[in-house]
Amino acid sequence: MRYHKIPDETVRRLPIYLRGLLTSSEQEQQNISSQDLAELLGVNAWQIRKDFSYFGDFGTPGVGYKVEKLARQIKKILKLEVPQKAALVGVGNLGSAILAYPGFGIYGFDIAAVFDIDSKKIGRKVKNIIIEDASNLQTLKKRKINLAIIAVPRGAAQETANALVNAGVKGILNFSPCYITVPKKVKVITIDIAMDFARLPYYITAS
Amino acid sequence: MRYHKIPDETVRRLPIYLRGLLTSSEQEQQNISSQDLAELLGVNAWQIRKDFSYFGDFGTPGVGYKVEKLARQIKKILKLEVPQKAALVGVGNLGSAILAYPGFGIYGFDIAAVFDIDSKKIGRKVKNIIIEDASNLQTLKKRKINLAIIAVPRGAAQETANALVNAGVKGILNFSPCYITVPKKVKVITIDIAMDFARLPYYITAS
Repeated sequence: MRYHKIPDETVRRLPIYLRGLLTSSEQEQQNISSQDLAELLGVNAWQIRKDFSYFGDFGTPGVGYKVEKLARQIKKILKLEVPQKAALVGVGNLGSAILAYPGFGIYGFDIAAVFDIDSKKIGRKVKNIIIEDASNLQTLKKRKINLAIIAVPRGAAQETANALVNAGVKGILNFSPCYITVPKKVKVITIDIAMDFARLPYYITAS
Repeated sequence: MRYHKIPDETVRRLPIYLRGLLTSSEQEQQNISSQDLAELLGVNAWQIRKDFSYFGDFGTPGVGYKVEKLARQIKKILKLEVPQKAALVGVGNLGSAILAYPGFGIYGFDIAAVFDIDSKKIGRKVKNIIIEDASNLQTLKKRKINLAIIAVPRGAAQETANALVNAGVKGILNFSPCYITVPKKVKVITIDIAMDFARLPYYITAS
């Protein structure tokens, strides 16, 4: 609980930094300056220094931050030290892309259960996981899976969220293009895959 | 150029606000308070007020912000007033999901050209657009398409970015799970669809 005063905006950026640090670590880099990290990630160096100062890492002048140590520290703050099991609901194009995406594994997520309502898909194997009937969502409680990803059509998103909440799920990443309502005790992050595109023209100067 | 002093962090949030305003507008809401908008979007009300103050909209006490007017204003700042043509490269699961996603149209994007290298896909129609051979990317310049979405496998991302830059593309939304390097004049936003998941456990209290 040492870290509970970190502002939400900093928490939002921590996964960005973590990704950069893990990339640097892959390339066997031991130290990284805030400038180099900023350039890699396309963010501001002063913002990085400010954000890291919230948890007391000020780096070493002329050397930078210790890549592995800082990555471990951010993982600890984000509670990503132990692998987190998650369920995926919806195996359409987006759900399939999510399953194939290496990023979830990199952050320590294990997509351990996959659901759909399509009888043609149920029973099939994707990435070594058998697709289950979405009417079995309530088994998640017993299986101690309390994180879920929703990738169902817009019209089915709220109903899916309700079933997940009933199954004891506490955190939902919602990829369906709509807002969903859940009890206060449940955290929902809604992803709009088009949203970042909307700030691209801002940065483009007319030729 | 009136708005050039808006901080990057505010620009990052403007599409979030725009989405909320467009949702309210769909529901024929004429005014919205910062509190209601904050609740809808899961952000802070004070942050909204601060961000809107950068472009001089302070709302009306007891009434709130004018939904349509504010949406128009944000669209103007983000240069989303006129429809923006974009190309998509890669029609795998993620590319197909992107094509089917309603959000791009909502923000004013028109995915006007689609490319792949798979001969089985080239010539096929998706969403009324014929998939073209990725070796024709250089035609984008003539067609005045200067925004592109990359949804190709990791190993092909840099090569695709190079071809797009050669074709005069100025803004790239990169969905491939890797960093790409482009000349300074080109803006790249790399999307990690797993990233937001990485901050979900932080908000979940142990039971």
